[in-house]
Amino acid sequence: MEKNKIGAKPLLYPMPTTLVGANVSGKPNYLVIAYCNIVNYNPPLISVSLLKNHYTLLGIKENRTFSVNIPSAEMVKTVDYCGLVSGHKVDKSKLFNTFYGALKTAPMIEECPLNLECKLVRTLEFPENEAFIGEIVEAYAEQRYLTNALPDIKKLDPIIFSSHDYNYWKVGENLARAFHVGKELISENE
Amino acid sequence: MEKNKIGAKPLLYPMPTTLVGANVSGKPNYLVIAYCNIVNYNPPLISVSLLKNHYTLLGIKENRTFSVNIPSAEMVKTVDYCGLVSGHKVDKSKLFNTFYGALKTAPMIEECPLNLECKLVRTLEFPENEAFIGEIVEAYAEQRYLTNALPDIKKLDPIIFSSHDYNYWKVGENLARAFHVGKELISENE
Repeated sequence: MEKNKIGAKPLLYPMPTTLVGANVSGKPNYLVIAYCNIVNYNPPLISVSLLKNHYTLLGIKENRTFSVNIPSAEMVKTVDYCGLVSGHKVDKSKLFNTFYGALKTAPMIEECPLNLECKLVRTLEFPENEAFIGEIVEAYAEQRYLTNALPDIKKLDPIIFSSHDYNYWKVGENLARAFHVGKELISENE
Repeated sequence: MEKNKIGAKPLLYPMPTTLVGANVSGKPNYLVIAYCNIVNYNPPLISVSLLKNHYTLLGIKENRTFSVNIPSAEMVKTVDYCGLVSGHKVDKSKLFNTFYGALKTAPMIEECPLNLECKLVRTLEFPENEAFIGEIVEAYAEQRYLTNALPDIKKLDPIIFSSHDYNYWKVGENLARAFHVGKELISENE
């Protein structure tokens, strides 16, 4: 085995492909973001990290609310478009049908199979990015995307992002049950 | 379209499956973590969020270094085992071959196709979790996992985690090129 040093790069596989939504001056804007993940289980806290010049950032600061929307593979062209053009120049409010929840100011995308409505609880300053920690106050999904009242990853058909080579991928086959498949090793190692 | 309120839960699809490594009292320990993502591009900063009682957390605080290792699908049984047993009770140092890089105290897993060596730069306190922000000081991979000197997601064959229903999945087919497939919409919307 020979490991190559491939350089200090922000590599991680897989990354999610999300559309972060915020109202900027009263109009919805949506931005494609892969730097997103959960940071606390209960209460459910999610972190989205945006470059400081992103238009959407203005809306998050203005309303202290935002949304994380999980698009499906069939939306890939429009999703990619949201990453190619800035809300500074283009009105992205007409790309999707927008709905609102209890927070009133976090625009969510009807066409996305899963929507997380978030209340800003903390802002973190990094050299190039600003991370927004949101408490998920509600999640929304149509019945057809659920199995046993929970989102079903195969029904959602979310988009995986691979960084640096810049590609989108689909979720493939089921590999194993988590917190289960490793049980047979417990007796061997104890 | 009727959206159901499915409750305020920490949902996100896909999530990565990583093995976070740290030396605890001089011995490597590895923990499976899905709450992990990049928070800054340059310098490359990565966040891992651990429950406060996790054994690995002691090592991160002790040395101010840790690693994020991306396991491949064929390692799923051992990966899952790392999530089932705690370093408080079981010595997980013998499960893998460990190597070290420039930081000397961040144990990395030879068998994982990609290793990120991290220096702790910031700690964030959340109600149940503690998030560690690490600067990636080097990344390691064997030649066979690279295409054009970058990790190739299909060669890595990383494990996707789906939360709440607790399943592991493989990466499937290529969907589209990012920052490219949406270009044809630019003229239509301008």
